[in-house]
Amino acid sequence: MIFIDACLKKETEYTPIWIMRQAGRYLPEYMATRAEAGDFISLCKNPKLACEVTLQPIDILGVDAAILFSDILVVPMEMGLDLSFVKNKGPVFANPILKESDLDRLEGDSQDRLTYVYDAISMIREQLSKDKALIGFAGAPWTLVTYMVEGEGSKTYNRVKREVYENPAFMHKLLQLVTDEVIKYVERQIEAGVDAIQIFDSWANALESDVYLEFGWSYIKQICDKIKAKYPHIPIIAFPKGVSNLEKYDGNFDVFGVHWSTPLDEARDALSDRYTLQGNLEPARIYSKERIKEGVESILETMKGKNHIFNLGHGMIPDLKPENAKYLVELVQKMSKRG
Amino acid sequence: MIFIDACLKKETEYTPIWIMRQAGRYLPEYMATRAEAGDFISLCKNPKLACEVTLQPIDILGVDAAILFSDILVVPMEMGLDLSFVKNKGPVFANPILKESDLDRLEGDSQDRLTYVYDAISMIREQLSKDKALIGFAGAPWTLVTYMVEGEGSKTYNRVKREVYENPAFMHKLLQLVTDEVIKYVERQIEAGVDAIQIFDSWANALESDVYLEFGWSYIKQICDKIKAKYPHIPIIAFPKGVSNLEKYDGNFDVFGVHWSTPLDEARDALSDRYTLQGNLEPARIYSKERIKEGVESILETMKGKNHIFNLGHGMIPDLKPENAKYLVELVQKMSKRG
Repeated sequence: MIFIDACLKKETEYTPIWIMRQAGRYLPEYMATRAEAGDFISLCKNPKLACEVTLQPIDILGVDAAILFSDILVVPMEMGLDLSFVKNKGPVFANPILKESDLDRLEGDSQDRLTYVYDAISMIREQLSKDKALIGFAGAPWTLVTYMVEGEGSKTYNRVKREVYENPAFMHKLLQLVTDEVIKYVERQIEAGVDAIQIFDSWANALESDVYLEFGWSYIKQICDKIKAKYPHIPIIAFPKGVSNLEKYDGNFDVFGVHWSTPLDEARDALSDRYTLQGNLEPARIYSKERIKEGVESILETMKGKNHIFNLGHGMIPDLKPENAKYLVELVQKMSKRG
Repeated sequence: MIFIDACLKKETEYTPIWIMRQAGRYLPEYMATRAEAGDFISLCKNPKLACEVTLQPIDILGVDAAILFSDILVVPMEMGLDLSFVKNKGPVFANPILKESDLDRLEGDSQDRLTYVYDAISMIREQLSKDKALIGFAGAPWTLVTYMVEGEGSKTYNRVKREVYENPAFMHKLLQLVTDEVIKYVERQIEAGVDAIQIFDSWANALESDVYLEFGWSYIKQICDKIKAKYPHIPIIAFPKGVSNLEKYDGNFDVFGVHWSTPLDEARDALSDRYTLQGNLEPARIYSKERIKEGVESILETMKGKNHIFNLGHGMIPDLKPENAKYLVELVQKMSKRG
C-alpha cells in the first residue's frame, strides 16, 4: 500500500493522496446514500451505508486511501451525551458537562456500544482493493472535551476555556476519562481491520501554545504511546490543527498533519526529519483548476525529497465540484511520479 | 502621552496598556448606556453616548488610551449596504456584494455620512485627560470585503474565497473601492482629533499566507502610505490578526498588533527591531487573577528591553469580570515600571 509506505517513510513511486472529508456533501452519490439513511447520525450507525460512502471517493476520485465514514462525536455520544445535528448550526449536545458532578453521568464502556463502527470497518476492508489503505480515526480528547463542555460549536470557546483557566484539575479529570475511551476505541478499530489511525484535534488552535501542549497535545501523546506499545506496525497520523511552535511537537506518531494556515516550509524544517508530513492545500483552491495547479506545484516543490502524503489542509467544502477534486488527485499522482 | 511615546519607540516610564473591546458588554456601565441608546447601531450613531462609553474604561480601569467606540462596519453601511445586528448571529448585510454589477450600488462618499463618528471624536478628545491618547480605527479592506461578500459572519468564508480564487480581478476592484473609502475615513478621524489609528484585519488568518499578502496586507500598506504622507506624526497600529510568516510584514506603520495565538517571542524576533509590538495576553486568562499574573510575567519578560504596548491578543469576552480587567491594568503598570 503506497499510503502505508509513505507513512513509514519508505520510498514510494509517487506522492500518495487522500482528501479530508472526501466522503461528503460535495458528492451527489454521498447525498443519495445519506438520504437513504435518513440523517447523518443514522448514516454513521448503519454499517452497510457507511461502508458505501467510505468507498465512493475511491472509485470517483482515485485516492490512495479510504477513510472510515463516521464522526468524532460518536465517542461522547456513546459515553452518554445526547447528540443531535441541528441544521445551520451543527452538532449539539443537549446535556453538556458543566461541573465535576456531571462526570458521574459519563459511561466508561462506550467502545462496547460502537460496534456499528467496527462492523463498517470489516465490511469496508473486505470490499476495498488490497492496494488501498483504510484509515480509522478518532477525535483528540481536547476537541471532544470542547464539544462536551460547550454543548455545541463555538466561536470563542469561552465555557471550556473558563474551566481550563479556573478549574484545571476538573478539566484534566475529564480529559483523562475521554482519553481512556479513545484508546479503547482506537484499539477496537485496529482489531476490526483499519490500516492506520488519524487523531483529529480540530480545536487545537483554540488554546494558546503552552496551554494546548498541556491540555491537548499531552493526551494525544498518551494515546500514541498506548497504541504503539500494542500495535507498533500501525501508522498514526496526528493532526493538531493549526498549532504554532512546531518544534515542540514530538511523540510516538508517524505522520504530522499540517493545516493550510501553517506555512509548509516551516513545518518541513521543524518536523520532516522525524515525521512524514501530510497536507496542506487550501481547500478553497479547489474552486479553480488553475489555483489547484499553482498550489500543487508549490507544495510538491516544498516537499521535494521529503516524506509526504498529499492532502488538503482542512476538509472539503460542500459546494466544491467533484470534477475538480478528481483533477487534483490525478495531478498529484502524475506530477509527483519519480524516475 | 505615554501611549504615543511607546508607539514612536521612545522610552517610557512603564509599559502602557489598553484593552481591545475595553468599552463593551462586560461593563455594567456600558450595558446601561447601550440600553439608553436603544441598540448597538444607534449607540454608534449617537456621538454623546458613544463618547460616554468610550470614556468609561478610562475611569473604571485606568488604561492609558481610549479607543473610539464605533464599529468597523459603519463604512460599508454608509457605502450603501443595509446593516443589522441579529441576536446570537452578529452583523448581517441584507444586500451583500455577489457580482461585479453589484459594485454600482456602492457609494463613494461614505466619509461624508460618517459625521456622527467625527462628532464623537471631538467630544471625546475634549473630555479625555490630556495624558491619555485617543485611538481612532477602521476595518482593513479585506475584513470589510469579507463581510460585504459573505453578508454575515462565516466559519469558512467560502463565498469570498471562491471569488478570490475564481475572480481575483473582481475582488481587487472591490478591495480598491473600499480602500479609497477607508483612507478618506481615517483622514477625517485624524482631522477630528484622534491621536493614533488602528487598522483591524480581523479575518487576516482566513487566507493562506501569500494570498493574504496580495488581497489583504497590500491594501493596509496602501492605507499606511497615504496616511503617513499626509500625517507623518500620527502613529498607525496594524493588526493583521493571527498571520504567519511575520518576517514578510513591513510597511509605513509604527505598531504591529500580535494575536494571542502568535508566539510573542517569534513576533519579537521577526519585528521588534522595526516596530513597537502590541499584545498579546489570551483574553480567557482574565477569568482568573492567577492566570493573569502568570501571563503578564511571561509577556513582560519576553518583551524586556523592547518597545511594547500591553494589550490582549483579541477583544474582551462579555462574561469577564471588570474587577479582573482592572487588576490586569494595575499589574502591568506596576510590574513594568522602570526604576
